[in-house]
Amino acid sequence: MRILIVGAGGTLGRAVDAELSDGHEILRAGRSSGDYKIDLRDDASVTALFAATGKVDAIVATTGNVHFGPLAEMTSAQFDTGLQDKLLGQVRLALIGQHHLNDNGSITLTTGILTEEPIRQGVNATAVNNAVEGFARAAACELGRGLRINVVSPNALQESWDAYRDFFPGFEPVPAARAALAYRRSVEGVESGRVYKVW
Amino acid sequence: MRILIVGAGGTLGRAVDAELSDGHEILRAGRSSGDYKIDLRDDASVTALFAATGKVDAIVATTGNVHFGPLAEMTSAQFDTGLQDKLLGQVRLALIGQHHLNDNGSITLTTGILTEEPIRQGVNATAVNNAVEGFARAAACELGRGLRINVVSPNALQESWDAYRDFFPGFEPVPAARAALAYRRSVEGVESGRVYKVW
Repeated sequence: MRILIVGAGGTLGRAVDAELSDGHEILRAGRSSGDYKIDLRDDASVTALFAATGKVDAIVATTGNVHFGPLAEMTSAQFDTGLQDKLLGQVRLALIGQHHLNDNGSITLTTGILTEEPIRQGVNATAVNNAVEGFARAAACELGRGLRINVVSPNALQESWDAYRDFFPGFEPVPAARAALAYRRSVEGVESGRVYKVW
Repeated sequence: MRILIVGAGGTLGRAVDAELSDGHEILRAGRSSGDYKIDLRDDASVTALFAATGKVDAIVATTGNVHFGPLAEMTSAQFDTGLQDKLLGQVRLALIGQHHLNDNGSITLTTGILTEEPIRQGVNATAVNNAVEGFARAAACELGRGLRINVVSPNALQESWDAYRDFFPGFEPVPAARAALAYRRSVEGVESGRVYKVW
């Protein structure tokens, strides 16, 4: 398959790239690295991406920022940054990307364990992740041509653990390579509207 | 208690008003009706609302629009309208409102059955509802001073059934007065981070 990975230069993206390179042609996109530069916050950038890639068989997003900070100090503008980036960015990729997938193609988005397990300062992440998962469950019911859409929800990654451990007390980080297996399940599997939890 | 209802002029808001008026002082706010005019999409409008009301014991939101339309035709701008209105509007009310609640006060937001039960053309609603519920679950863990936050998720309302029945095949609409009971459970109860499903 021809597989587009958006966020291919990140910790998770590189692991997904390594996993899926075995057996597939990988097209790599990112904010600042990869074969294609892309800004998921911009319709024109996403449209230009698919004009450059042509049709693909799978779209994988391993990207997206949210706002972390105490609830008591949070502003609606800060909250909106996560909506615009990790939520609407991935939704935009799916909305535009659906028209550039070959029949029976797939879309795989990324959330994380905070969907179900809140942490201090993480209200934006929990809201954004829940929205992405809700979008995918509902979108799976409307996609035509055999198209599928799923979400991978990894735990904190071992590779990033030193930076994040204080925010994830008692959590068990997972290797990025293990999380990457879930993307293969989504891309090569048969299900749609699924959340693959790697935790 | 002094209870602020935002969206008090709507079908659901009027039922909540009728329910909670028995035993409480009700302050009514809305886009176009009520004691206080408010635009939840605007920080300054929400700040001005609380400057006018003073401290309250409970904040209830029964308002918020989302985008309905086919996934295959949906644009990211259309999707964002629901994010800015029903999602960020209610989050903004909570973020600002937390500072204008008396100790042991509560916030009650509104989602709907589409959180878990997708319908055709409803991907924005499902995403937005999931985000609001995720926000409340996470925010409940961070609120201080005995503050609580919950969500009421009603089924389609009997009062609106003629307009919506074609989009909700096989659903069982509920009377707004029955949905209103869940707001009393949230306001007068002890739980936080709960989603009260009326379906």
